[in-house]
Amino acid sequence: MIKVAVLGATGYAGIELVRILSAHPDVKLEILGSHSFSGQPISEVYQNFSHVLDLDCEELDLDRVAECDVAFTALPHGASKDVIPTLIEKDLKVIDLSGDFRYDDIKVYEEWYGQVHSSPDLLDEAVYGLCELYRDRIKSARLIGNPGCYTTCSILGAYPILATGYGKSENIIVDAKSGVTGAGRGLGLAYHFCECTENTKAYKVATHRHTSEIEQELSKAAGENVMISFTPHLIPQKRGILATIYVNLAKPCTTEELVNVYKEFYKDEYFVRVKEAGKLPETKHVAGSNFVDIGIVVDRRLNRAVIVSALDNIYKGAAGQAVQNMNLMFGLDEKTGISNAGFYL
Amino acid sequence: MIKVAVLGATGYAGIELVRILSAHPDVKLEILGSHSFSGQPISEVYQNFSHVLDLDCEELDLDRVAECDVAFTALPHGASKDVIPTLIEKDLKVIDLSGDFRYDDIKVYEEWYGQVHSSPDLLDEAVYGLCELYRDRIKSARLIGNPGCYTTCSILGAYPILATGYGKSENIIVDAKSGVTGAGRGLGLAYHFCECTENTKAYKVATHRHTSEIEQELSKAAGENVMISFTPHLIPQKRGILATIYVNLAKPCTTEELVNVYKEFYKDEYFVRVKEAGKLPETKHVAGSNFVDIGIVVDRRLNRAVIVSALDNIYKGAAGQAVQNMNLMFGLDEKTGISNAGFYL
Amino acid sequence: MIKVAVLGATGYAGIELVRILSAHPDVKLEILGSHSFSGQPISEVYQNFSHVLDLDCEELDLDRVAECDVAFTALPHGASKDVIPTLIEKDLKVIDLSGDFRYDDIKVYEEWYGQVHSSPDLLDEAVYGLCELYRDRIKSARLIGNPGCYTTCSILGAYPILATGYGKSENIIVDAKSGVTGAGRGLGLAYHFCECTENTKAYKVATHRHTSEIEQELSKAAGENVMISFTPHLIPQKRGILATIYVNLAKPCTTEELVNVYKEFYKDEYFVRVKEAGKLPETKHVAGSNFVDIGIVVDRRLNRAVIVSALDNIYKGAAGQAVQNMNLMFGLDEKTGISNAGFYL
Amino acid sequence: MIKVAVLGATGYAGIELVRILSAHPDVKLEILGSHSFSGQPISEVYQNFSHVLDLDCEELDLDRVAECDVAFTALPHGASKDVIPTLIEKDLKVIDLSGDFRYDDIKVYEEWYGQVHSSPDLLDEAVYGLCELYRDRIKSARLIGNPGCYTTCSILGAYPILATGYGKSENIIVDAKSGVTGAGRGLGLAYHFCECTENTKAYKVATHRHTSEIEQELSKAAGENVMISFTPHLIPQKRGILATIYVNLAKPCTTEELVNVYKEFYKDEYFVRVKEAGKLPETKHVAGSNFVDIGIVVDRRLNRAVIVSALDNIYKGAAGQAVQNMNLMFGLDEKTGISNAGFYL
Repeated sequence: MIKVAVLGATGYAGIELVRILSAHPDVKLEILGSHSFSGQPISEVYQNFSHVLDLDCEELDLDRVAECDVAFTALPHGASKDVIPTLIEKDLKVIDLSGDFRYDDIKVYEEWYGQVHSSPDLLDEAVYGLCELYRDRIKSARLIGNPGCYTTCSILGAYPILATGYGKSENIIVDAKSGVTGAGRGLGLAYHFCECTENTKAYKVATHRHTSEIEQELSKAAGENVMISFTPHLIPQKRGILATIYVNLAKPCTTEELVNVYKEFYKDEYFVRVKEAGKLPETKHVAGSNFVDIGIVVDRRLNRAVIVSALDNIYKGAAGQAVQNMNLMFGLDEKTGISNAGFYL
Repeated sequence: MIKVAVLGATGYAGIELVRILSAHPDVKLEILGSHSFSGQPISEVYQNFSHVLDLDCEELDLDRVAECDVAFTALPHGASKDVIPTLIEKDLKVIDLSGDFRYDDIKVYEEWYGQVHSSPDLLDEAVYGLCELYRDRIKSARLIGNPGCYTTCSILGAYPILATGYGKSENIIVDAKSGVTGAGRGLGLAYHFCECTENTKAYKVATHRHTSEIEQELSKAAGENVMISFTPHLIPQKRGILATIYVNLAKPCTTEELVNVYKEFYKDEYFVRVKEAGKLPETKHVAGSNFVDIGIVVDRRLNRAVIVSALDNIYKGAAGQAVQNMNLMFGLDEKTGISNAGFYL
Repeated sequence: MIKVAVLGATGYAGIELVRILSAHPDVKLEILGSHSFSGQPISEVYQNFSHVLDLDCEELDLDRVAECDVAFTALPHGASKDVIPTLIEKDLKVIDLSGDFRYDDIKVYEEWYGQVHSSPDLLDEAVYGLCELYRDRIKSARLIGNPGCYTTCSILGAYPILATGYGKSENIIVDAKSGVTGAGRGLGLAYHFCECTENTKAYKVATHRHTSEIEQELSKAAGENVMISFTPHLIPQKRGILATIYVNLAKPCTTEELVNVYKEFYKDEYFVRVKEAGKLPETKHVAGSNFVDIGIVVDRRLNRAVIVSALDNIYKGAAGQAVQNMNLMFGLDEKTGISNAGFYL
Repeated sequence: MIKVAVLGATGYAGIELVRILSAHPDVKLEILGSHSFSGQPISEVYQNFSHVLDLDCEELDLDRVAECDVAFTALPHGASKDVIPTLIEKDLKVIDLSGDFRYDDIKVYEEWYGQVHSSPDLLDEAVYGLCELYRDRIKSARLIGNPGCYTTCSILGAYPILATGYGKSENIIVDAKSGVTGAGRGLGLAYHFCECTENTKAYKVATHRHTSEIEQELSKAAGENVMISFTPHLIPQKRGILATIYVNLAKPCTTEELVNVYKEFYKDEYFVRVKEAGKLPETKHVAGSNFVDIGIVVDRRLNRAVIVSALDNIYKGAAGQAVQNMNLMFGLDEKTGISNAGFYL
């Protein structure tokens, strides 16, 4: 059994990790780190765990964590980067859910995050944990920068059209809609039920940090520098991101042709489901699962592709993908514990 | 592996059965019966199953079903009772999710359902599938009348106070609130999103059929005839029932004392979670799980207990309980495939 | 034009007052008191008011308020009672939305609110602002204790059956379900969208303060001391309360008969709509309006009436009723500015 | 008083018209046409109107309608075009909410609607009822083609940047999100509460008819042929459209500069609210009102403007705009009966 610590276990990404890992056949949950709730049983903080998981939340104690095989760090941005070097030194594998270890170029990180990076060496070593693109490197990694929710959805949606030369790299627009779990469990007027229900809005237009992460990967796909408009929106549901991606075509093609390009690109991927021509993804189809659904429409009138991709932001967009990374790092079948269909209801 | 047929697989209870059974370690799903969608892959009808379950829906063919070990019948009320005698004859075990096989007294059924029962002999043989009360009889049953959602919630909430003599049998009120999946997938103006969201209402006041089922069991608990007011309400959420139960006390006691009575009563039950004094259930704590949560407040001023019980109407109130019954009937650990924590999010 | 101050204008009851009063033909809004947002235009705090209302929020200045004709005090409980005596002294009429001036008996207030009342003389003078019961006294009042939301719904639902002798005063149960605006705009984990949506729960069972207010009025209806079980629930919608009221019958009757009793009782009331036998209220029918809808079912089997009443908690349950009181106090048609149909959508 | 007929009164646009007109000071509602509910009181079909509006729904009787001054036709697409010529002949003014009279070029209509237009002469005469652009022509029109919901939101959002030469006409993307009332009251699995809640999806990608209507108007703004990508999405709320519009800049500018361009363009418009730089619209700010809110961000990095516009699809996007047109046609203040702030809650 893999001995696991979840640090930051009581946020939404953390508790989804706990939910998935508590049913994982090869995992023993050892440590639930939570500053806010230390000393309390997890089944009091999240009462759905009563009778299922008998563990108390605890303050961070690196010596105790060091007895685990792997740590998931779902800490507030910045906090994780003080902890991680120590854990790596103590020979743990670390899967970090913050933005700290997702970048190839430290300058991009420092520009978009507005701060100096504290562990440049580890940043060099860290592997970007998008399994569908970096599976082999992940298998042997010690430190994973687990991709963001918007980014996973956007990159997997746009990568094939750029990598295959069907899409142009200028004028790419990613218009993304996210459920409210993406904002976390912290309090804020914008997340009050009465403010949030029956409401849709855009936010951080042209300035959201995930832009840089998407651009990094799409530039690799295109083989040239790609800059995109990325617009996040908040929609009144808990789970789910839908990204609508607009890419001008470099060579004319039909919807069916482009669907086939995508099917070929993802032909070995269990967790990517490319829709047949005429069908489109819905967040309901992926909620509660590790799947990314992708639908494609070619607009012949405009010589433009509209690609719609959907995932569950706290599952494939956070906790599920982190477990997928863990599975790879420990030589397990990548699907172990996360192969289930979504809730639908 | 237990070979399983789900008849009526594309309704909400049916598809929840499919979801649970598709991840059950001892089950092989063989047949998904669906009149409306016969010939279509289940992964087109419910696209969350793409890549997970590769089965087509099919018209009912009793000879094919006969090759299974067990059939779950989630058919519209009435339809199942033509099918079930044949399946029993062909040596299948049958777990029926309709109201047809839940009654001790055929007269009660015929009065509340307004029709003649077509299989009186099977009704005599059938076992009421409330595992927490009838575990031993279920283990050896051929035919299970799987309890209704409102009834499971109400009976498990009120049974202990009556069985232990703490509650009076007069003036019992069960005020229940249900999510919309309880109404099924059929179309109706009342279930249109715009009519349903931001709306709460009572319906079938004093006439809901589940009243008779609750009274049957609570009468056994009390050892005398019990008649209750049962009021169902529709609330704007998908999953969950919360039943608020009012019982006058036969002997004065404190909240703590009554909580202990309940804890003792359910001490061996994994799926019943009695809350500590001062805590109350929420539908969010049970959604997506087979748990029933029960909270208790004694109102000393009025010498009355208020018992709040909650479950997921399509899980413990339908599909999960049906699987719990199957586990018992096949000698498996009762929790197999259904021991997970709820979604919470 | 009536010059109006709204103190506590940026809470949910306050802003609903502002919304109603900004369209009231006989009102000039002069002062919007708000400690938290003083100095900010109301149209920045609630951007729906941009182009409609050009007023800044301001700190409480009693001299400025004194230039108005009437003040609505929607202040946090306790705060209003320091302000109100001064305003009364300065010859304003005051309509207070807190619990401070709703009680006949100071002892009941002090017991349920756990504090000494600071203005016993004003409590004596204050009129309980339930227009349907105290219209005449309201017309000449200086100080109104505007009823609570749960209480308005419960009292108007249960009053006729008790006042006419059809109902018994023992074993009355009021099971009430409220939308989340009832909890106000303050932050709290329980009101986070992700915690609140898809969730229903009971709270403050047997201890909610509105119990005492309901009992006060129903005791007057019955002509004897009435004690009730009152259970509030939180449901995932913004507006609306539905109260399901159980009353044992003192004399047997049919649903039709009891409906007629109610129709007669409320025959002159524009804002009370008694449903025909066979129809029941829904919160959607009253949301955004000053109406209370009441439906009645007599359960002959149990000799018990089930009365369902519904209103919009921040309209008829707070702001709309306050305006109805103002209309009466200033000799206007009671319906002025609040006669509209609800939103429905 | 203006005597008004609403034909198709029981759909969602129709009933919103009834709600607005029932409180309009210069209107007398005479006829509520409804095939489905003819003979029933409107207060039974929509119970929020009980005590407010005492009118029965009736079958279409053109002679009776002819006694009115104006007819709003909110009929299913196609149905209205048989009725309208007769009404025009009988000297009524007609405001049509279908797509039939919105086009300058009959060929565009016939291509996008896939059918021959039945009244080419009337199409020539009809005025496009977007008051902010065609106020003068509306004042003297007999027949108005009331704009669609998506189109009003998109055109008002994009018109100024094109009309002033700040925006390029290539690569315009309109990514729009709509609440479910936009789909109407008809039944369909996609609008079942359990299918719709917690779900977001795109639909009719590259093929939605409103595309052609938006292009017609934006081409006039730009003075050249404009073709856009228009992608509608369904989001889990009742009211509201948010359109996120991407336009490449023809001349570099700052957000503040472009905000000022918009403020200048709409300086006389009560119903258009241009947000200050740094603020963005939310559907909650406009729900229940006739306002369109527009926010602007210039992305200097990409030399692209992102314009976000929001309105209530059944108010400014349908019924409210229709009343605004009526006000203009009858010489009333354009704001009469529709000047209110939105619900917010």
